Amino acid sequence: MLEETLAAVRPLDPVSMAAARTLQARLTKPPGSLGALEELATRLAGLAGTCPPRLPQRPAVAVFAGDHGVHAQGVTPWPQEVTAQMVTNFLAGGAVVNAFARQVGASVTVVDVGVASRLDPAERLLDRKVRFGTGDLTEGPAMTRDQALAALAAGIEVTGRLVDAGADLLITGDMGIANTTPAAALIAAFTGSAAETVTGRGTGVDDVTYARKVAVVGAALRRHAPDPTDPVGVLAAVGGLEHAALAGFVLGAAARRTPVVLDGVNAVAAALAAVALAPDAVGAMVAGHRSAEPGAAVALAHLGLTPLIDLGLRLGEGTGALLAVPIVAGAVRVLHEVATFDSAGVSEK
Amino acid sequence: MLEETLAAVRPLDPVSMAAARTLQARLTKPPGSLGALEELATRLAGLAGTCPPRLPQRPAVAVFAGDHGVHAQGVTPWPQEVTAQMVTNFLAGGAVVNAFARQVGASVTVVDVGVASRLDPAERLLDRKVRFGTGDLTEGPAMTRDQALAALAAGIEVTGRLVDAGADLLITGDMGIANTTPAAALIAAFTGSAAETVTGRGTGVDDVTYARKVAVVGAALRRHAPDPTDPVGVLAAVGGLEHAALAGFVLGAAARRTPVVLDGVNAVAAALAAVALAPDAVGAMVAGHRSAEPGAAVALAHLGLTPLIDLGLRLGEGTGALLAVPIVAGAVRVLHEVATFDSAGVSEK
Repeated sequence: MLEETLAAVRPLDPVSMAAARTLQARLTKPPGSLGALEELATRLAGLAGTCPPRLPQRPAVAVFAGDHGVHAQGVTPWPQEVTAQMVTNFLAGGAVVNAFARQVGASVTVVDVGVASRLDPAERLLDRKVRFGTGDLTEGPAMTRDQALAALAAGIEVTGRLVDAGADLLITGDMGIANTTPAAALIAAFTGSAAETVTGRGTGVDDVTYARKVAVVGAALRRHAPDPTDPVGVLAAVGGLEHAALAGFVLGAAARRTPVVLDGVNAVAAALAAVALAPDAVGAMVAGHRSAEPGAAVALAHLGLTPLIDLGLRLGEGTGALLAVPIVAGAVRVLHEVATFDSAGVSEK
Repeated sequence: MLEETLAAVRPLDPVSMAAARTLQARLTKPPGSLGALEELATRLAGLAGTCPPRLPQRPAVAVFAGDHGVHAQGVTPWPQEVTAQMVTNFLAGGAVVNAFARQVGASVTVVDVGVASRLDPAERLLDRKVRFGTGDLTEGPAMTRDQALAALAAGIEVTGRLVDAGADLLITGDMGIANTTPAAALIAAFTGSAAETVTGRGTGVDDVTYARKVAVVGAALRRHAPDPTDPVGVLAAVGGLEHAALAGFVLGAAARRTPVVLDGVNAVAAALAAVALAPDAVGAMVAGHRSAEPGAAVALAHLGLTPLIDLGLRLGEGTGALLAVPIVAGAVRVLHEVATFDSAGVSEK
């Protein structure tokens, strides 16, 4: 499934992108006056292979949930059980991701790829559990190579399921207490950055915990010496099950030519793995926002993506990306609905 | 009408703001993890005088249109007739403001406060024309004091009309070929900045036109020596009819305790006049985005407002502010819909 997906990831279509640029120049607005939205709409035309690309009307966020053996190292003050409790909260519609999804008209699907406890079945919950949480990356690999591949496959499968059901704009979501620690390790491994550069305070840890977290990330990098040319190996050594699944989700989106809005530091860490596997996958990615986590900016720079929103959010779940959905849709809507100078009888300069 | 409105502008309610902060701390998310949205929601609670404040569900943009005598100085390559042509485009639903309004579910009302030609009546057009365009501010005042007051009153009246019809979130819009020139003069006058600091390229003028535009703004400031402690006098000397009306619109919003999302450089120039008339009016303002025009950043800093979006937009019409509407609504929605740690059974750190 992974090989097939990687083979289906192709570059943006330059003909559709040129058509989008030509169309934008004829619309009743000063050339370039929509700033970054014009390039965004152009990229989405290139992804769709047609201009205008389809107007996103059925956004769908998938929240991949997993637990982390590194939690035992004291990298966060939150108890591990909060991962499962928040999944319950998502399914009840009570979390911020649910509120923002309602705001922008997105569906919410929760995918258990590695929560440490057994979860009750629920309508919006997909059970794709690979294992009950990862191993502690300071003591050994977070997971086996086969488990990383299984999580990647789960992400790809979820993309297919959502797109087949009509989703036209995908949004990454994540939940996993302690997951900003493996996210930092992934970003360090794929960008060649130091642990202290990419490690942040996550949910808001104190100075002592922060120092421990940086040390843990640094120790993991030294122990595993992850090789960025072997992305599955990197995910297995220092990643999380939700990161591997998110990488698959993003690759699936690229293979299905469906735009995917990246949320925060966990999403961009997974996106680095995705582009390491298939560089053209970046064409499907929209950076929803810039998380307050320092690793997020490092990863976005490495991906060459400019975030749409930058409001100091550091919640995850898909929240920042959801807020960007109307901006993405608005950029495309311009290509569909705005009159040209000719059609509107407006004089040009 | 102005006096009454100014008297009705009151500070934010500290009790409701404290209630919002207390509530946010109990919601199922790490404290502070929604970044700037938490302070935004807190301010909106203070404006509403209740927590949670009403969830914005009926946003309304008012596009104030006017022409400018300074157009004769060659400050823009666009012909003046484009103002009226774009009004026709707005009324036909073909402009970017219309596309973005549809995206976020906002109504669009166009208000003629000073278009240089006679406009045909239309359903979504309010005829509040004060005069057929301003005078050339390099040769004399842009308008009389009474005309500035009439435009202010028109803006206040439009706020009242929209709020009475159910609007719960107001959005500033503007249209007026050459209007970034008076906007720059207003920003210079109210912030004490130099012409070259606040003058930008508007719709994208070339170097020669830009130099002329800076010289025109500088000459206007020298000629009129506008006194920022007399805001109506400043508007009359170097403003536009849409700026005066927008100042009234914003003051009306503050008096009606209804949030108003500011668009670009014309909106923030008008907002400076509004706060000069009633300092507490800033409490009703949300900076929708940061326009690429340099004066916008200067004005926002003077107002103490942080923009929600920063994507290099420089179109006006209300477009940047409309894209921020789901963010504003999302910030408030959190207070209404997100479960508390207690209610959701989620452990705290």
